[in-house]
Amino acid sequence: MPILRHTALLALCASTLTCAAQQPPAALSARDSDPVKLGWMQGSPPPPDKVIRSTDANAFQFPRMRWSVAHMRELLPTVEVSRGLGPPSPLPYRLDPQIDSVRFTPWGNSGPMTWEASLWKNYTDGILILHRGEVVYERYFGALKEDGQHALMSITKSFTGTLAAMLVAEGVLDEDKLATAYVPELQGSAFADATVRQVMDMTTALRFSEDYADPKAEIWTFSAAGSPMPKPAGYSGPDGYYAYLRTVQKEGTHGDAFGYKTVNADALGWIIARATGKSVPALLTERIWSRMGMEQSAYYQVDGQGTAFAGGGFNAGLRDLARFGELMRNGGQWHGQQMIPAQAVADIASGGSKEAFAKAGYPLLKGWSYRDMWWHTGNAHGAYTARGVFGQAIYIDPAAEMVIVRLASNPVAANGANDPWSLPAYAAVAEYLMGK
Amino acid sequence: MPILRHTALLALCASTLTCAAQQPPAALSARDSDPVKLGWMQGSPPPPDKVIRSTDANAFQFPRMRWSVAHMRELLPTVEVSRGLGPPSPLPYRLDPQIDSVRFTPWGNSGPMTWEASLWKNYTDGILILHRGEVVYERYFGALKEDGQHALMSITKSFTGTLAAMLVAEGVLDEDKLATAYVPELQGSAFADATVRQVMDMTTALRFSEDYADPKAEIWTFSAAGSPMPKPAGYSGPDGYYAYLRTVQKEGTHGDAFGYKTVNADALGWIIARATGKSVPALLTERIWSRMGMEQSAYYQVDGQGTAFAGGGFNAGLRDLARFGELMRNGGQWHGQQMIPAQAVADIASGGSKEAFAKAGYPLLKGWSYRDMWWHTGNAHGAYTARGVFGQAIYIDPAAEMVIVRLASNPVAANGANDPWSLPAYAAVAEYLMGK
Repeated sequence: MPILRHTALLALCASTLTCAAQQPPAALSARDSDPVKLGWMQGSPPPPDKVIRSTDANAFQFPRMRWSVAHMRELLPTVEVSRGLGPPSPLPYRLDPQIDSVRFTPWGNSGPMTWEASLWKNYTDGILILHRGEVVYERYFGALKEDGQHALMSITKSFTGTLAAMLVAEGVLDEDKLATAYVPELQGSAFADATVRQVMDMTTALRFSEDYADPKAEIWTFSAAGSPMPKPAGYSGPDGYYAYLRTVQKEGTHGDAFGYKTVNADALGWIIARATGKSVPALLTERIWSRMGMEQSAYYQVDGQGTAFAGGGFNAGLRDLARFGELMRNGGQWHGQQMIPAQAVADIASGGSKEAFAKAGYPLLKGWSYRDMWWHTGNAHGAYTARGVFGQAIYIDPAAEMVIVRLASNPVAANGANDPWSLPAYAAVAEYLMGK
Repeated sequence: MPILRHTALLALCASTLTCAAQQPPAALSARDSDPVKLGWMQGSPPPPDKVIRSTDANAFQFPRMRWSVAHMRELLPTVEVSRGLGPPSPLPYRLDPQIDSVRFTPWGNSGPMTWEASLWKNYTDGILILHRGEVVYERYFGALKEDGQHALMSITKSFTGTLAAMLVAEGVLDEDKLATAYVPELQGSAFADATVRQVMDMTTALRFSEDYADPKAEIWTFSAAGSPMPKPAGYSGPDGYYAYLRTVQKEGTHGDAFGYKTVNADALGWIIARATGKSVPALLTERIWSRMGMEQSAYYQVDGQGTAFAGGGFNAGLRDLARFGELMRNGGQWHGQQMIPAQAVADIASGGSKEAFAKAGYPLLKGWSYRDMWWHTGNAHGAYTARGVFGQAIYIDPAAEMVIVRLASNPVAANGANDPWSLPAYAAVAEYLMGK
């Protein structure tokens, strides 16, 4: 059933730690899997074995995935998040070639490594470092160019969470109300007695497995529901993300523990849409994307009803994500204008309950927390980050006045596969920049 | 077979006079069919009877089509034509409210009408008039906004033809060579013994019916081949536009007569791709779209192999099309830079063989011709135009120093249904502007 599989793999891209099981046994190196070198989708038409199409199950599997993440709109219907029609805002440059040589010690037993080597190790497609608002480092690899857009996977959730935090700060959304106060259709689902705040922080208790090794895992039904492709003959499941959300069942007690489940972000997107009368892409356009002098319009993949995938379907350009990270670092101000209420940014930057987070049992993320769909490191710099599978990150280090954006296509979905070579690298660059 | 039907209707959108047969017997007026007023795709999710999805046969039929033409990317996979990353080029404004009152006499038996009334009569979605490079008139209706993109239907062909004319002027493409010199795979098809020039001017003799009333018409096979959706079970036809082109059969003698067949534009797109090593969207980005300070990126719909629909799949913003029209009016120069060789623009602006054109028997287009996939009116002003079904037009009147861009969603595909209320209206505005 290729249709079901491909969209499940898209949702995989959006979430989860368990999909590490999808890891190719002996993955090609970053250099050997370079999507340009491998010739995907080159030629008119491409040779049959080099065609990537969304209806093929392997379109979102390594190594083809290294091309797909930079060309999602060519595979799927999408809705624009417009940059507006004005000039792009300038990003000042102060490139520092020394950064390539910054050394760090990866977590685990391996020896020291340079920043530059870490980019290859982590299958980086694009990386940009801002220090005090200036670009000190920027590189593109593989299929991503400066005028391209890359799949953000679960970074999407942080945009959903930021919009919700804005609406809470503005009093449009009451975080103490039940989800059903905004979306009555959630009555009968696990979300019925969850508060908006529990959805925002993913402390809901949901029966929702993202274990791709289990053919009965809920992720498969979710993915089939969200596919924009024609439903297969005999399909009788829910049609669309919203229809799926109504079927999610409860497992446990809301508010007890952090449980990372993509569907929370889609439920939050629905709540946002009902509270504002605007779709998530329309609101993001109106409130942020069209107001900051972004260089490029961005986009979401949509389901068969035109609903954006608020849990993992956002795609954008590297520099524009850096602009957004800098906006966050500056407390929601951009060129003197308050784009996001300072209170909302402060809420995100303060992090969430470490106790609730610890119950989720992430071995590498001791002392972390999750708030407004952002991850907080709990480190001495107060760093917090938006994260997506295969290595996507917007990493904000307030103490170092640094923002790092990384877009990547690691063969392994789970960030546990790149954290040991990225989080300490970020910390080392932060120290380097602070010492300058 | 909804998949076959929907894409056939897309191809319908791309071409043909015969699809007037699709006309609803008593269509709603422009005001009554306003897509915002009718509520298509509003709500989260939209009510079931207001959902438009590409897999529904009626997605591209009036009145739903009035929403779809402004949201093609939300229904189909698309490839970007990037505006680049620079600032938009300024479009100076000198709006003239008197234009609304300009009167003209429609062709046929009806009495005089105002310019403003003609816009409603023709189901206009967006209209812009440039006079001497200044915007003297601009309006948006229905689902199109200034920051939106609209389906251009067969205006797409004029972009394909312009690229080819550029390459001919530059010596990259030899118009006297056979199509097979560039695309050997066309051996065995009707294109095998056609010259590049015959393809560019559609004087090929092809067995290709775009008669939608005939279930055996070739347009159905073409559309099924080009669908990006999964092929239905048991499908054994060609897969992709290029594969289809190889099957086109000859009917008559090349070079004798103009015969408007969409597949010529797709064959030309293939020739261009092979001559340059670049896809049509990539070449259009590189040579024009990223160099003119366009306000918005544009896009093409693609088939299952990622091939852009060079015969009808282009979508762009109203003002950017005006910029392109002005580029043509200025002999290929834009802000002092020669974007298109003057020789190529002159070739387009001079028109083609009136004799070959007359053989096609268009009752309303006496004295017209077709050259480089542009239509030439043969009138005293030397006006020439890019045209697409449902009322799309870029109309360039050199004598009046005027460019008109109209995007529309007329219930009737064939331009014969709006020419009587648009071509004389354009002429009247030209006279008005010349008399100022």
